[in-house]
Amino acid sequence: MRSDNTVIYKVFKDLNFSQAEIKIIEAAMEKIVLKKGVILIQAGDNVDAMYFILDGCLRTFYIDSQGKEHTIQFGINDWWITDFTAFFTESKAIMNLEVLRDAIIYKISRDAREYMFAQIPKTETFIRKKLENAYAAFQKRILSNLSQTATERYLNFISTYPNIEKSIKNYHIASYLGITTESLSRIRKELAKQ
Amino acid sequence: MRSDNTVIYKVFKDLNFSQAEIKIIEAAMEKIVLKKGVILIQAGDNVDAMYFILDGCLRTFYIDSQGKEHTIQFGINDWWITDFTAFFTESKAIMNLEVLRDAIIYKISRDAREYMFAQIPKTETFIRKKLENAYAAFQKRILSNLSQTATERYLNFISTYPNIEKSIKNYHIASYLGITTESLSRIRKELAKQ
Repeated sequence: MRSDNTVIYKVFKDLNFSQAEIKIIEAAMEKIVLKKGVILIQAGDNVDAMYFILDGCLRTFYIDSQGKEHTIQFGINDWWITDFTAFFTESKAIMNLEVLRDAIIYKISRDAREYMFAQIPKTETFIRKKLENAYAAFQKRILSNLSQTATERYLNFISTYPNIEKSIKNYHIASYLGITTESLSRIRKELAKQ
Repeated sequence: MRSDNTVIYKVFKDLNFSQAEIKIIEAAMEKIVLKKGVILIQAGDNVDAMYFILDGCLRTFYIDSQGKEHTIQFGINDWWITDFTAFFTESKAIMNLEVLRDAIIYKISRDAREYMFAQIPKTETFIRKKLENAYAAFQKRILSNLSQTATERYLNFISTYPNIEKSIKNYHIASYLGITTESLSRIRKELAKQ
């Protein structure tokens, strides 16, 4: 019980729940332990769940029509991750979800999530606000890409994902920033000189 | 009363409300009539409201560090529009909101929206689902841009915004598609030939 409660209060920071509410949330969330390298979602899959990362590192990536990989999101401790486009619109996955570092995650299915929201409205308010922030962050990132240099985008990346660099490969970072790995090492060298 | 109720049932399709609930929603929404050319939000403004478009056409655009305009979203009848990044994160506008065709819109402030959600939880569920779809649509559009040709993006644009072309200028469409106006007319000519 105790460890699950810890997860609940990590997911819903600053909220308080009755024992009855905790039972509902615990029933909604399923613990999964995953090894590095696992592909949790593949393009074309049905996506009926989202995942809260208790510990570990995952990423979603998109493969374009030329076969080039684009890293869309990294997920680290206390973040939600899935193919949100597929999950929200009940359509097939267009992205892939990969485990980059051994992970402990909590899965919540679409139905369990809707049931939890209906039973405990404050969880819906909390998640709605998270979603608003995620929407804003994603839009801001796209707009920043229009104005920022690769170096500025790299510095943003570091502040968004502190301590992530040891878990992931250089080509993951480069594909997230939309640059080559050669450009990435040039940027790092230039910053190291300063 | 009647015309306002019409708006309520346009905003919350398929929901039913008691008279008391209708009063709360009516009090939350303020009707505004706007002329073509009005700039409703300018980069740097505080953004404390979002807008439901009963009739008309608006767009949000971003000006990058080189002074180039990027059209981010068009809003047509029954759509919500604002600088969502600023509204959701309570920060200054990074985009501009312009009226492209005379419009009747309904404004809801951040506080009025939160009050309405707290009083009538089904409005929050409804808007949370809208937001999930908007997040998915925006992410899908960004990913499509990585794989699709300009012609495919133009065809997508037409199906997303039917009948909008007569309300807006060619350079608005071009800046939404990320192409020049010359490329846009070339695409149109090629499609006309088919």
